[in-house]
Amino acid sequence: MSGVYRVEQDSIKTFAAEFDPQPFHLDAPAAQASIFGGLAASGWHTAAITMRLMVTGGLPFAAGIIGLGGEIVWPRPTRAGDILRVESEIVEILPSRSKPNQAVVKVRSTTLNQDGETVQVFIGKILAFKRAAA
Amino acid sequence: MSGVYRVEQDSIKTFAAEFDPQPFHLDAPAAQASIFGGLAASGWHTAAITMRLMVTGGLPFAAGIIGLGGEIVWPRPTRAGDILRVESEIVEILPSRSKPNQAVVKVRSTTLNQDGETVQVFIGKILAFKRAAA
Repeated sequence: MSGVYRVEQDSIKTFAAEFDPQPFHLDAPAAQASIFGGLAASGWHTAAITMRLMVTGGLPFAAGIIGLGGEIVWPRPTRAGDILRVESEIVEILPSRSKPNQAVVKVRSTTLNQDGETVQVFIGKILAFKRAAA
Repeated sequence: MSGVYRVEQDSIKTFAAEFDPQPFHLDAPAAQASIFGGLAASGWHTAAITMRLMVTGGLPFAAGIIGLGGEIVWPRPTRAGDILRVESEIVEILPSRSKPNQAVVKVRSTTLNQDGETVQVFIGKILAFKRAAA
C-alpha cells in the first residue's frame, strides 16, 4: 500500500496544458459538455501520479523501479479533489534465461480514489536484479 | 505522422522530480552508474510527450482522443536532446454492440527518436464516435 496523493484542479490543468491539451482536461465548462461530464485528469496524469506513489511508497526493488512496459486501463477518470492511493501485488516472476541475476517481475498496481473506486490498473513488467549474496 | 518534440535535460529532471523521483531520471552521474548508462527520461514522460504529439498532431477523432487503456512498451529510454516524433496507424475498429454511434479504435503509436530508434510503442484503445450524418 502506498501513501496518498491529492489531485488539485490546477495540477490537472497544468499537466494537460503540457501533455494532453484537450478541452475536457483543461476547462470545466467544456468538460461538463463532454462525455466526461466534468473536468477529468489525463489518463497519463493518473499514470504519472501512480508512478510517484509506487516510487515513494517503496516497492522492494533494490535497483529501482525499471519499467519495461505493461498493460494499462482507465475505468474512470481522476477528478479534481480526488485522493489517490495505489495497491500493488506481484503477479509473476519470470527469471531471465541468459542473465542469472535478472528477472522480469509482473506487478499489478491498482490506483484507487478516496471512495475506493478504481481509476487505473497497470500490470507492469519491471526489470529486477537479485541482491548480491551476503 | 506527428510534429516533433525536443526533450531537454531540464524537463527530464523536472518531470522525474514530480512523478518518478529515481536517481537515473534525476542525476546524470548517478544515471551513468545505473543500468541506463546515462540520464534517462521516465517512461511516463515519454508516454506524456507521445500523447502531446498525438493530440497536437491531429489524429482524426472528432470528440477528442479518449483513451480507455492499452499496451505500452519502452524498448529504450528517451535521452536529453532527443527529438521525438510519433507514427500512428489504426489497427482495428471494434463497433460497440450496444451503442450504434460508438466504436473502440485500436491505434498503434510508435514513438521514434531522431535516429529512427523506437523509444515507445503504445497500442491504445480509443473511444470513438461516428460523425452525425450530413
